[in-house]
Amino acid sequence: MNADRIFLEGKKNALAKLKKANNENKVDPGILSILNVINKSKNYYTSSSCYGRIALLEIPSIGDKKEAKFLGKWHRTINVNELLTASKNAKTGQLWFLSQSPIIHIIAKTNNLADELLKTAIAFGFKNSGLKSLGKKIVVEICSTERLDAPIGKDKILFCNKDHLELLVNISNEIMNKSIKKLQKLEEKLRKNLNTHKTTK
Amino acid sequence: MNADRIFLEGKKNALAKLKKANNENKVDPGILSILNVINKSKNYYTSSSCYGRIALLEIPSIGDKKEAKFLGKWHRTINVNELLTASKNAKTGQLWFLSQSPIIHIIAKTNNLADELLKTAIAFGFKNSGLKSLGKKIVVEICSTERLDAPIGKDKILFCNKDHLELLVNISNEIMNKSIKKLQKLEEKLRKNLNTHKTTK
Repeated sequence: MNADRIFLEGKKNALAKLKKANNENKVDPGILSILNVINKSKNYYTSSSCYGRIALLEIPSIGDKKEAKFLGKWHRTINVNELLTASKNAKTGQLWFLSQSPIIHIIAKTNNLADELLKTAIAFGFKNSGLKSLGKKIVVEICSTERLDAPIGKDKILFCNKDHLELLVNISNEIMNKSIKKLQKLEEKLRKNLNTHKTTK
Repeated sequence: MNADRIFLEGKKNALAKLKKANNENKVDPGILSILNVINKSKNYYTSSSCYGRIALLEIPSIGDKKEAKFLGKWHRTINVNELLTASKNAKTGQLWFLSQSPIIHIIAKTNNLADELLKTAIAFGFKNSGLKSLGKKIVVEICSTERLDAPIGKDKILFCNKDHLELLVNISNEIMNKSIKKLQKLEEKLRKNLNTHKTTK
């Protein structure tokens, strides 16, 4: 199968998967709009994505991601009470409070098209973006640098006082709001770029 | 200038810069060994690097990285007292305690060689690695996922109690130790791979 056929076949499967996931409410609603802009282009398609999130994670031991358990997960800003309520389900291990920026994986038709998208993403503040693979599947990861990964407790005990919790929640919300704005700007840019884009054929 | 000449010219300049920086003790000593392995290959050269670090940062306001000030920076494991001592120089803004994995930027001669190095890095646990640019300069970023980015205080006030500080310092040290081991394994692998590597010419 030649490169074009592989790309088209991959795109067909990815779009079907996205449609199914969306029907089952498994796609973060806020991110659909930019995914659609990308998927409308003949040169790219999206393979996975996350809108960004605030989360409370319990990790039995460091690096043990398989055993990690989400005690709370929000694709929106939160308040201190929500964090406190989620922390009451803690059992054993480290408690991590996280705020993560959006992430989108995109397959590009050619190396040049991948590089072009990467440069746009970086110019629009997604500085942690990179190409994750060349060859058969050319994968662009769009990702930002803002994040918070804070251990805040251990074995059921939350170490933070109220002022500290407020600081953590405020910063997480700021990261969330900033990410949403950046994503909107990138979407506008891609809407212009990709619609006027010459296809490779 | 053709691609080969650009690569050779770039390598000459990068190696001279590295030598100068090393003479001025500006290169993290732990990382020199893997840089040398990479720079011995005809297909790659390193352009910048950090061995990984634990740091205490003061940020006047979020995202204001230009005004961020290091109150402490260590390329080794630390103890709680060192963190406490560093925090005494705080003035205004958020206090962030950070533990960051090593990062190496490498220029590759061709897209395929870049992809090959990227796949090795990812297979050896540097899962946050990616290609940052194709075209004239093909840049591979080798980077791991383990990190800690924790706001721990504000306007001179450290919010953490002793138990919390110990947890933070222990995790940071674990990240540092884990990174060093991973870097050693990658170095061994690259020593084998790059020495037996066929050059592109």
